Amino acid sequence: MTTTTPSTEDSLTTGGDRGYLRIATEEAYAHPEMYELYRRHLRDGSLPDIGFNSLVGYFLGSEHPQPKSVVERLQEAGEKRLADMDRAGIDHQVLAITAPGTQVLDAREGADVARKTNDRLAEVCAEHPTRFSALAAVSFEQPDAGAAELERAVTQLGLKGLMANSHIRGRYLDHPDFLPVLEKCAELDVPLYLHPTTPPNSMIAPYREAGLDGAVLGFGAETGLHLLRMITSGLFDRIPGLRVVVGHLGEALPFWADRIDHMHAKQVASKRYDAIGPLEQKPSDYLRSHIWITTSGMPWTKPIMFVRDVVGADRVMYAMDYPYQYELSEVVEQDELPMPLEEKKEFFELTARRVFNLQF
Amino acid sequence: MTTTTPSTEDSLTTGGDRGYLRIATEEAYAHPEMYELYRRHLRDGSLPDIGFNSLVGYFLGSEHPQPKSVVERLQEAGEKRLADMDRAGIDHQVLAITAPGTQVLDAREGADVARKTNDRLAEVCAEHPTRFSALAAVSFEQPDAGAAELERAVTQLGLKGLMANSHIRGRYLDHPDFLPVLEKCAELDVPLYLHPTTPPNSMIAPYREAGLDGAVLGFGAETGLHLLRMITSGLFDRIPGLRVVVGHLGEALPFWADRIDHMHAKQVASKRYDAIGPLEQKPSDYLRSHIWITTSGMPWTKPIMFVRDVVGADRVMYAMDYPYQYELSEVVEQDELPMPLEEKKEFFELTARRVFNLQF
Repeated sequence: MTTTTPSTEDSLTTGGDRGYLRIATEEAYAHPEMYELYRRHLRDGSLPDIGFNSLVGYFLGSEHPQPKSVVERLQEAGEKRLADMDRAGIDHQVLAITAPGTQVLDAREGADVARKTNDRLAEVCAEHPTRFSALAAVSFEQPDAGAAELERAVTQLGLKGLMANSHIRGRYLDHPDFLPVLEKCAELDVPLYLHPTTPPNSMIAPYREAGLDGAVLGFGAETGLHLLRMITSGLFDRIPGLRVVVGHLGEALPFWADRIDHMHAKQVASKRYDAIGPLEQKPSDYLRSHIWITTSGMPWTKPIMFVRDVVGADRVMYAMDYPYQYELSEVVEQDELPMPLEEKKEFFELTARRVFNLQF
Repeated sequence: MTTTTPSTEDSLTTGGDRGYLRIATEEAYAHPEMYELYRRHLRDGSLPDIGFNSLVGYFLGSEHPQPKSVVERLQEAGEKRLADMDRAGIDHQVLAITAPGTQVLDAREGADVARKTNDRLAEVCAEHPTRFSALAAVSFEQPDAGAAELERAVTQLGLKGLMANSHIRGRYLDHPDFLPVLEKCAELDVPLYLHPTTPPNSMIAPYREAGLDGAVLGFGAETGLHLLRMITSGLFDRIPGLRVVVGHLGEALPFWADRIDHMHAKQVASKRYDAIGPLEQKPSDYLRSHIWITTSGMPWTKPIMFVRDVVGADRVMYAMDYPYQYELSEVVEQDELPMPLEEKKEFFELTARRVFNLQF
């Protein structure tokens, strides 16, 4: 099922011969020192997050060739990655720290991982400016320091946005504590990418016991909840300049859009919850005003066309999720999406250029 | 937004003048004695389920006219309900015990509620055999007794299937304890309807604190997880005759179908989890072999047409979710779905007749 090393005779080509460049917008990187730290925490059992021990314990502990190959590729952003991109016809990757990143770590360790990751990503982008851009990592545990690191990463290092790997040790970005980081995104006019991780300890049990806490379902449940919390908390009304990118075709919120609007309106009318009040728009309207969607992990024609129909063709863009899902057939399927060339150019290239302000 | 009493000038008509009868397949009923028992538990704080106290506490405690009207209508299955059905053009309702039903109660109280509910539903169906059919309730806490009550309800009372309001005090139907009930469904050749409830205590916290534990998102997360657990546990391979009906357009599993298949195959290959092993089919194939889907709570053209495209037009049927979502405009939207008359007859009438073996 998974072809980690496609044969060369199947190679696609870069360079825009089809009329567009392919910009992949959710591409993962892991600093080797972060993985050293993770290995120490796994060995010591010093992180209480069940999902961390499930997910990272698997990737760093498995002897199976698929996860081993992923872990090797995650830590490299040079010639090997470029060769993989060339084979798959990927002109440009928007790199970001892989899940769970800093978000299982305390403030000190998280800030250290973020700074080292940002410095390394800036070097990679400087070495290959036409092939790589990158999003910043921060520790959210001390939000003012996180906002300062984001400012450094964007203004001094040239990074293009902020990666958030969903919950922060069980807390969500609608918590007022995190406002300084989100306000800094808006001030710098860079997007926040909301990426999955495993659900927090307060939610993971019925997923974990059935082996469904990862990408098969838990990721989407966690990240869809997180995004809806951001919407219904009124965060986008409070920070109108906040722009969010979300993968996996919107983590099922486009599927639920009308039901969410309907039930939210009922809750507002009946004042059922203190946490649910009037918004400036319907919840689903934020999918069309403040949120952009990528196809990471969902490279299939039917859901892609459905989500474009729900949120608008100009808000859906390509992502591969390298190296987790490195498969040429998925690039081909998206090359062949039933849409005219100009929309395909928007999908593969121009939307990403606009959202991330890519200048190469 | 919500019209609980449509004006008569907007009335639709029953009787099949459009070329089909409208059979509504997820229609809720609450025995007044069940609500008395719930009120006692709410007063005493004697049920530890957070979702019960949130959901039922709201419906039985709110002074807002919308939930009050719902609670009044839930307990009636006679002239008032028939008048509502007439106004909305609903020829026939498949009734079932409303969530959480027996599934927050202990074995003794649950069995008592189930028996009273089944007896009352049988009376209602006998009084109006062309207007009502019903699904049985059981307590799942003592599965052998539950299987016996299901057999009584089907063979002696003429009920047409079994209602399961998702988790059973935190346990899921893939647990081997519940096999006697599920095997009895297959033996009697009646479907199990898997209906939402609030997530269990082991999962609800990040939904509850944001006011998202109900129909707005928590229901779908809980029920989609439940259905996927049933699939990936191999339950349908073990009981090939088990047929499941699920509402809300499949609780987002059709949206995730390809991703689930992809990630499940990776997990099987890498032996990541003891709980995840090979199945006779891809996970999404069970949506096309053992599972039927209704439009309850999702009466919108785009997702309906998308789900029909994913699972097959012959597996998607109409439901209203009366009295929770009693809105004539939603019937009209589904009357006007872009499909030929013969498919609309399948959608509104014939699929329900086949799945529930309706003979009226």
